[in-house]
Amino acid sequence: MIKASVVGGSGFIGGELLRLLLDHPDVSVTGASSVRYVGRAVHYRQPHLYGLTKLRYCNVADMPPSDVIFVATPPGAAVGLLPELESRARVIIDLSPDARIYEQARYEKYYGPHPRWELTAGFVAGLPELHRAELATADRIAVPGCMATAGILALSPPASRGMIKGSIWVTGLTGSSGGGAAPTVGNAHSIRSGAMRVYAALGHRHEAEIAQATGLEVHMSAIGVEAVRGVQVICHAELVTGVTRRDVWNAYRDQYAGEPFVRLIGQRGIYSLPEPKILVGSNFCDLGFEIDEQAGCLTVVAALDNLVKGAAGNAIQCFNIRMSLPERQGLRFPGLHPV
Amino acid sequence: MIKASVVGGSGFIGGELLRLLLDHPDVSVTGASSVRYVGRAVHYRQPHLYGLTKLRYCNVADMPPSDVIFVATPPGAAVGLLPELESRARVIIDLSPDARIYEQARYEKYYGPHPRWELTAGFVAGLPELHRAELATADRIAVPGCMATAGILALSPPASRGMIKGSIWVTGLTGSSGGGAAPTVGNAHSIRSGAMRVYAALGHRHEAEIAQATGLEVHMSAIGVEAVRGVQVICHAELVTGVTRRDVWNAYRDQYAGEPFVRLIGQRGIYSLPEPKILVGSNFCDLGFEIDEQAGCLTVVAALDNLVKGAAGNAIQCFNIRMSLPERQGLRFPGLHPV
Amino acid sequence: MIKASVVGGSGFIGGELLRLLLDHPDVSVTGASSVRYVGRAVHYRQPHLYGLTKLRYCNVADMPPSDVIFVATPPGAAVGLLPELESRARVIIDLSPDARIYEQARYEKYYGPHPRWELTAGFVAGLPELHRAELATADRIAVPGCMATAGILALSPPASRGMIKGSIWVTGLTGSSGGGAAPTVGNAHSIRSGAMRVYAALGHRHEAEIAQATGLEVHMSAIGVEAVRGVQVICHAELVTGVTRRDVWNAYRDQYAGEPFVRLIGQRGIYSLPEPKILVGSNFCDLGFEIDEQAGCLTVVAALDNLVKGAAGNAIQCFNIRMSLPERQGLRFPGLHPV
Amino acid sequence: MIKASVVGGSGFIGGELLRLLLDHPDVSVTGASSVRYVGRAVHYRQPHLYGLTKLRYCNVADMPPSDVIFVATPPGAAVGLLPELESRARVIIDLSPDARIYEQARYEKYYGPHPRWELTAGFVAGLPELHRAELATADRIAVPGCMATAGILALSPPASRGMIKGSIWVTGLTGSSGGGAAPTVGNAHSIRSGAMRVYAALGHRHEAEIAQATGLEVHMSAIGVEAVRGVQVICHAELVTGVTRRDVWNAYRDQYAGEPFVRLIGQRGIYSLPEPKILVGSNFCDLGFEIDEQAGCLTVVAALDNLVKGAAGNAIQCFNIRMSLPERQGLRFPGLHPV
Repeated sequence: MIKASVVGGSGFIGGELLRLLLDHPDVSVTGASSVRYVGRAVHYRQPHLYGLTKLRYCNVADMPPSDVIFVATPPGAAVGLLPELESRARVIIDLSPDARIYEQARYEKYYGPHPRWELTAGFVAGLPELHRAELATADRIAVPGCMATAGILALSPPASRGMIKGSIWVTGLTGSSGGGAAPTVGNAHSIRSGAMRVYAALGHRHEAEIAQATGLEVHMSAIGVEAVRGVQVICHAELVTGVTRRDVWNAYRDQYAGEPFVRLIGQRGIYSLPEPKILVGSNFCDLGFEIDEQAGCLTVVAALDNLVKGAAGNAIQCFNIRMSLPERQGLRFPGLHPV
Repeated sequence: MIKASVVGGSGFIGGELLRLLLDHPDVSVTGASSVRYVGRAVHYRQPHLYGLTKLRYCNVADMPPSDVIFVATPPGAAVGLLPELESRARVIIDLSPDARIYEQARYEKYYGPHPRWELTAGFVAGLPELHRAELATADRIAVPGCMATAGILALSPPASRGMIKGSIWVTGLTGSSGGGAAPTVGNAHSIRSGAMRVYAALGHRHEAEIAQATGLEVHMSAIGVEAVRGVQVICHAELVTGVTRRDVWNAYRDQYAGEPFVRLIGQRGIYSLPEPKILVGSNFCDLGFEIDEQAGCLTVVAALDNLVKGAAGNAIQCFNIRMSLPERQGLRFPGLHPV
Repeated sequence: MIKASVVGGSGFIGGELLRLLLDHPDVSVTGASSVRYVGRAVHYRQPHLYGLTKLRYCNVADMPPSDVIFVATPPGAAVGLLPELESRARVIIDLSPDARIYEQARYEKYYGPHPRWELTAGFVAGLPELHRAELATADRIAVPGCMATAGILALSPPASRGMIKGSIWVTGLTGSSGGGAAPTVGNAHSIRSGAMRVYAALGHRHEAEIAQATGLEVHMSAIGVEAVRGVQVICHAELVTGVTRRDVWNAYRDQYAGEPFVRLIGQRGIYSLPEPKILVGSNFCDLGFEIDEQAGCLTVVAALDNLVKGAAGNAIQCFNIRMSLPERQGLRFPGLHPV
Repeated sequence: MIKASVVGGSGFIGGELLRLLLDHPDVSVTGASSVRYVGRAVHYRQPHLYGLTKLRYCNVADMPPSDVIFVATPPGAAVGLLPELESRARVIIDLSPDARIYEQARYEKYYGPHPRWELTAGFVAGLPELHRAELATADRIAVPGCMATAGILALSPPASRGMIKGSIWVTGLTGSSGGGAAPTVGNAHSIRSGAMRVYAALGHRHEAEIAQATGLEVHMSAIGVEAVRGVQVICHAELVTGVTRRDVWNAYRDQYAGEPFVRLIGQRGIYSLPEPKILVGSNFCDLGFEIDEQAGCLTVVAALDNLVKGAAGNAIQCFNIRMSLPERQGLRFPGLHPV
């Protein structure tokens, strides 16, 4: 059994890591840290794990050594812990934004001053569909943001084949769990319920990751809508003259054939385009698109569960690759319908 | 114009009072206090009033004199303010629980030690359907709780006519706005959304008011369900032998004929029993019941908007009576469908 | 009293028309037609009107004469009724899409063959903010679609001042009531709840109206999200070189100063951009925008209640103008918070 | 591999059966029937299974032989199919109400005339917690209703130990998926969303099963609340004099110690009583209670996912017992949080 522990185990992403790791046939969970809940049973914060584990939260300093540590801390906190974590485990999988961006200037445009930029060296981007080979030997992995994952998977095929001209408009929709577990005035149920809240009209942070991965100029808005889990990105692009529907379809097929967690949706009816609702709990990223050949317009839609393919599930997919395990191990849950 | 002000104008009930008072043809709103938002525009906390008022929050000590003060403060806070408030206005309408209970022992069983019991003397219960005559001259009015209002209106007709035997089981359902505007772990959207949270399995506080008003022995549970506004109470009772469906129907008809805000629901279909959803924003309390004559069982259902008939609307109905205004003044909004 | 009747009174827009007209101080409602519910009480389909009217649904052929008829029928049905309706009332206010588009080719690109194109002559667009003068004497008024209203109000100021270059990407979000009252597989609660359903990735019908009114090339997507009421449109545009934030702000201020139902949102916090949630039941269209001057990017956001400013309320605003009534008559409800 | 097929595979329970069976390590799914979707891919109706199976719906008459057939048809349809099904598989697991009730009179009081009463002989109640031994050899299994399962598990310990006196009041809350996949006026999203719909004020059908299993006199109400999945029952009972909190706790502990899918909830905080929300997708039935020793009152709360422990998961638990498989096989999903 591979020993794994979770830093930041009382939050939403931490809870999802624990759920998936506890159910993973090759993993033994050896520790879960929390700043505020040291000594409390894990199920106090993760009630769905009631009866499934006897783990209690501990301080990072008291975490037993393990083979891998998953880090699910707020922005700016993970990178400072790195030296301590690397003394406890060989492989660090960071789900925070601290080490996702390659250029300091780009990072600081979106996040402000970086606490310890020099420590971000050597991280591999935790997106198997683009970096599978490097992940197989990576000891430091930086898992991308939830909407960034959706946006990159949505745009990579046409972008990498030079099919897009000009800048891209990306609109991201997200459920409330993307805002984390801390209660705020804006996330109180009465206020957040049924909202369509444009919390970024332009310049949402994840545009940095999408631009970095695709080479495109990206303008990104983000809207909180009613859902707990689920992210959907809608990407509007203009096509290079002459690109046909078939060209685009082939680009997606070529790039994602054989991918275990990317599905091209091409059916009729209500689910003819990706719908995050039916992906709850699953590690799929569903993709679909529509084209107006005459006008040269492309709209790509991508959907995923922000806590799974957008965070914990994607991290475990990276872990499986790194540990030479079957890539789908522990990630076979298909989602629910209806839900 | 009658001058009115609101103490506690940054909360949900305070906001609803302001909305209704600003639209009331006979009222001029002269002040709104808040502990935390002094100096801020009212629309900072009440965004639906953007552009409709230039009021800013002030301290209670800075509120200009007015004819009536509505008090929407947390439990225990209102009664201590009374001397100060009575120097500013003749009529005090208190929406907190401080002065709702007639006997100190009963109050303290549910709320703990009362801060200043002696100040609760002279309050009239703010429920027009039971206390209209006294309200016409009352200078101190204590508006009942949201589920208490529903429960009392539901049970009063059969209870006052001696139709019920034994104890009553009351189950109250409520939306999240009943918990107030302060963010908490339990009211965070991701946690509260879609919940069916039994927050009182027995002994919910409002059973004190229902028991007091009806003379029945009441056992009350309360469940938070997905909704922002809306309260529904389901009352299970055993009937005295021989009571028929017609007897019960007549009891409700006799008691509530002519009531402007109590409707007996007797239609077919989806809305054959009260539904809080369609009462959003309205001052109606809808009532309905089902009887099993053979088994001697009665289930009464009552629904209302907890912020309107369950609080601010009911307070303004009392105010209209006290000021000899038409009782429906400023309260004509019928609710929305669909919503 | 002005006599008004409603054709299509059993649907969602019809119900909203009836609610607003019954509460309108200058109107007497004389008839409500329905194809399927002839003879039924209006409250059978509009349960919020229980006790507020004794009207029963009738056939169009049995509707008594009135001064104005509001028509809320499905696409293609209204125009055929015109001759019959014009024999019953002088003023016809059509809320269907039948007479919204000026050019037949544009109409048929989006809606297919028009049943009686020749009958669409003489209609004035029912958008007071752009056509107030003509509406004052119009006997045939075609009220625009819900997302079209939001999009036109959002884009008209910069578009009419030549501030925008190239094409516009519009993303519309909508609650489920936009789909009408008829049950469908896709609108069943279990399926629609919590959805983020891209039902038009490109070429949504309302782009025809927005393009027509603004002269821009518009690409429009539409997404059904969890809400019953509420429409929000997010418009992405590139600005002509040199246009500043101040220029844009002035454009909106100049155009909408004095408009009773358009609000420019410029506050801080959660409600710094338009939010349909707090507009439920109100006739406001809230507008806001964000600019990246360096990149020359503009994102405009507009929100409204699709059944009020997006349909019935807007129709009554037109009616008030046509009848020389105060424009806000019967439309003063400010919305609810929280809700 | 054990061959299994599903009759009624296009509905919600059928889809849940297919999801669980496709993921079950000892099962091969050989057929899925549907009346309306013959020839269609299963994922047309079960979009979460897109890419996970190539099955297409067939007629019952065309289903290949299998070891077990799960039947998820509307009331009254299953029993008539029995002869045909028994020619195709040895073990029949019926999830419809047709064979749940032991006495014809009791059945007909709640469901009306039974189509073929004689065929209901020999069915074993599919509730492992009460009938595990018989299920090990049963060839005909009748899985109880969703709220019945919750109610029986909630009440069996005190009822079977003679702790309860008089009649029981049961209030059941349910999400919309309990109403099935067919669209109706009442289940349309705009109408059902946010509802608190008392669809049975007294005499809900599942009281027949609870009364039968516990020997108590049961009065049951049922309320549809906002959720897709999830059932919660709240049971109010009077205790025999002298029964203490400890007695009740011991009754539950004694009866359910070792049960893999019944959890007694005894923690502090938000999740101190059962919450269906966190059981979505899981096979747990969570139980909790509160007692007022002085008043002799007991409130028991039970929660489950109506499509899993309330239907498909419970059926597969029975199947595992019947096939001598580990009881938790294919049922280990713990639920999600937040969701």
